[in-house]
Amino acid sequence: MRAEPQSFDRVLSSMCTEPHPAAREAAERFLATNPGDPGTYRTVADLEDDAIATLGEIAGLEIDAGRDGNGDGEHGEGPSGYVTSGGTEANVQALRIARGRADDGSGRARPTVVVPESAHFSFHKAADLLRIDLEVVPTTAARRVDLDAVRACVDENTAAVVGVAGSTEYGRVDPIPELGAIADSVDALLHVDAAWGGFVLPFTDHEWHFGHAAVDTMAIDPHKMGQAAVPAGGLLVRSAALLDELAVDTPYLESTSQATLTGTRSGAGVASAVAAMEELWPDGYRDQYVRSQNNAEWLASELEDRGYEVVDPVLPLVAASLPTSLFEALREEGWRLSRTGDDERVRFVCMPHVTRERLEVFLADLDRLTAESSAAAGVRAGSRGD
Amino acid sequence: MRAEPQSFDRVLSSMCTEPHPAAREAAERFLATNPGDPGTYRTVADLEDDAIATLGEIAGLEIDAGRDGNGDGEHGEGPSGYVTSGGTEANVQALRIARGRADDGSGRARPTVVVPESAHFSFHKAADLLRIDLEVVPTTAARRVDLDAVRACVDENTAAVVGVAGSTEYGRVDPIPELGAIADSVDALLHVDAAWGGFVLPFTDHEWHFGHAAVDTMAIDPHKMGQAAVPAGGLLVRSAALLDELAVDTPYLESTSQATLTGTRSGAGVASAVAAMEELWPDGYRDQYVRSQNNAEWLASELEDRGYEVVDPVLPLVAASLPTSLFEALREEGWRLSRTGDDERVRFVCMPHVTRERLEVFLADLDRLTAESSAAAGVRAGSRGD
Repeated sequence: MRAEPQSFDRVLSSMCTEPHPAAREAAERFLATNPGDPGTYRTVADLEDDAIATLGEIAGLEIDAGRDGNGDGEHGEGPSGYVTSGGTEANVQALRIARGRADDGSGRARPTVVVPESAHFSFHKAADLLRIDLEVVPTTAARRVDLDAVRACVDENTAAVVGVAGSTEYGRVDPIPELGAIADSVDALLHVDAAWGGFVLPFTDHEWHFGHAAVDTMAIDPHKMGQAAVPAGGLLVRSAALLDELAVDTPYLESTSQATLTGTRSGAGVASAVAAMEELWPDGYRDQYVRSQNNAEWLASELEDRGYEVVDPVLPLVAASLPTSLFEALREEGWRLSRTGDDERVRFVCMPHVTRERLEVFLADLDRLTAESSAAAGVRAGSRGD
Repeated sequence: MRAEPQSFDRVLSSMCTEPHPAAREAAERFLATNPGDPGTYRTVADLEDDAIATLGEIAGLEIDAGRDGNGDGEHGEGPSGYVTSGGTEANVQALRIARGRADDGSGRARPTVVVPESAHFSFHKAADLLRIDLEVVPTTAARRVDLDAVRACVDENTAAVVGVAGSTEYGRVDPIPELGAIADSVDALLHVDAAWGGFVLPFTDHEWHFGHAAVDTMAIDPHKMGQAAVPAGGLLVRSAALLDELAVDTPYLESTSQATLTGTRSGAGVASAVAAMEELWPDGYRDQYVRSQNNAEWLASELEDRGYEVVDPVLPLVAASLPTSLFEALREEGWRLSRTGDDERVRFVCMPHVTRERLEVFLADLDRLTAESSAAAGVRAGSRGD
């Protein structure tokens, strides 16, 4: 098996990146461990506690009485949660917690979850899986959820309200404290999807986490801006009791119950998350945020100078209206790009591997392709006798 | 982050093992890839097709018209399925397929799934998640599902019947062809959980796979007996159309739909599965099966000689009735052991790392602890004046 992965040089739309060297090394060291069996694989179970403690610190989660978040028999005083397979699992489990809490006991309830139109497609996957109805609410011109629409939408059937802190298409941050108040008003949970935003937001003025608002659950992924290895997502919950909605008995593991979606889990991911955060929180992540945000603003400016409409980056993500022909030509050149759901804009996610140098190479290609396209158009125009 | 994982020397009850060196190397090579975004990470997307093709070969799945199993735009002629996070995801998704197929369109249907009492707890997790009712059927004295009980149980509400090929507690294989006929009789799907058994069963006379029976879906995990790195499970489906029940639109990836439970996925797991299977299928796996089965039979015999009741190994898994005091003493010595759900027997899973030498060390400890315990009992008896 001699295949080699492609380089990251031309990957501009992914929310994943190269793991930090310390994270890679830790992943390799812990490759043959399974935190889903914490009684057997005890070291990595302890590391998971460390990961959740640090994620809690990043996300403003106070020390909680705590419980046994990962079923390993240790009752800590730290935040509750666990290292998931990714943001999708965190979002699925958050909605499953809300569904369980809203259940009238008959198992027949069909609770609703209010989500912004900007929410990641994993919420639609979760709704399909969990047989939950999503109420999709529009965003404003600022591409943040429309609070009046949320207020109009919530009712006694609402199990949860979702706020996005770093949206997938535009990197926008919803008004999280106000969403918390609305959720409270109908006794619904507030889930914040900070899967991507969680590792840059601490260095901004946005109010997005457990310390800023009545947040109940949160998705925050070390394997995105956290520079851990895949798979390492995160689910944080304000109170350990919320995890009880997820617990399934485990009769033949050394531990007694399991709150995770998957069974066997990647110790490499857990260890890499701990190593990355140990190395980078907070200063390394702060430096990276500053670089990434600068790159995003520079790219936005360069694209605007070339006449393209750009959605200015609030966080390190730029969306620009490039013509489809140019988008396809760039992809033919090997640039790995994707567009917003409506196909109107190309998304540039300024991850750590997206350096200024790589963006300069990109712009040089963009300029060359634009010139070639104009020249070809000129030739066609000439041949029409214009 | 200087932590080191424990050695595998004393791990005797896990269904995971050390990855084969070729699998480890491939995992490291592909650590920074995400098959959940196949348009961006194309090499690993192609590797996933290879993995499914080989898993299909192992599981007797004929060339199918095929579809785009992993959403990467390539329509192959091979089996359909994808590399999951593990057996739990494969079982969840199989039941989700059955639920979708049984859905009367109102979204209100409460279909049932018939499972043996020997089924892995992930089926209970799936039932909770999917709001499906499980009908749990007893096993016979041979610890295989009771076919008459299955026949009595299935009806027009049955969406699926589950058969286990290598049960978690006893390594037993259900009568899969008969279960297929019963499932067919009520237009239900047959799902086979061969998560652990799938990589040893090819070398036995058991009838367990798509070529032997009317199997619709199967769980078969490279990261168990397949010696791949975690996470690498497998879901195989007889016809590509079954995966359609799982598809969710993906608006801003380069691919258009996603049939997986998680979003971002581990390229390391996929690559390691391909490398392991390339290296070991079929001869390496055959040799390993012979070694593992010999070790299991030897261990069973040694424990019986010492007076313990043993459930003879049909596959490389031995369950023995050790007294709780001995079980706990062995665990105090660092042996990582777990018991059957009723706590009556200790499970010894003869994975590749469970060599004859390690079992000899184990038996020496068991003998020493037994002798110490007898001596202590003798002293206590003596001090009572007996």
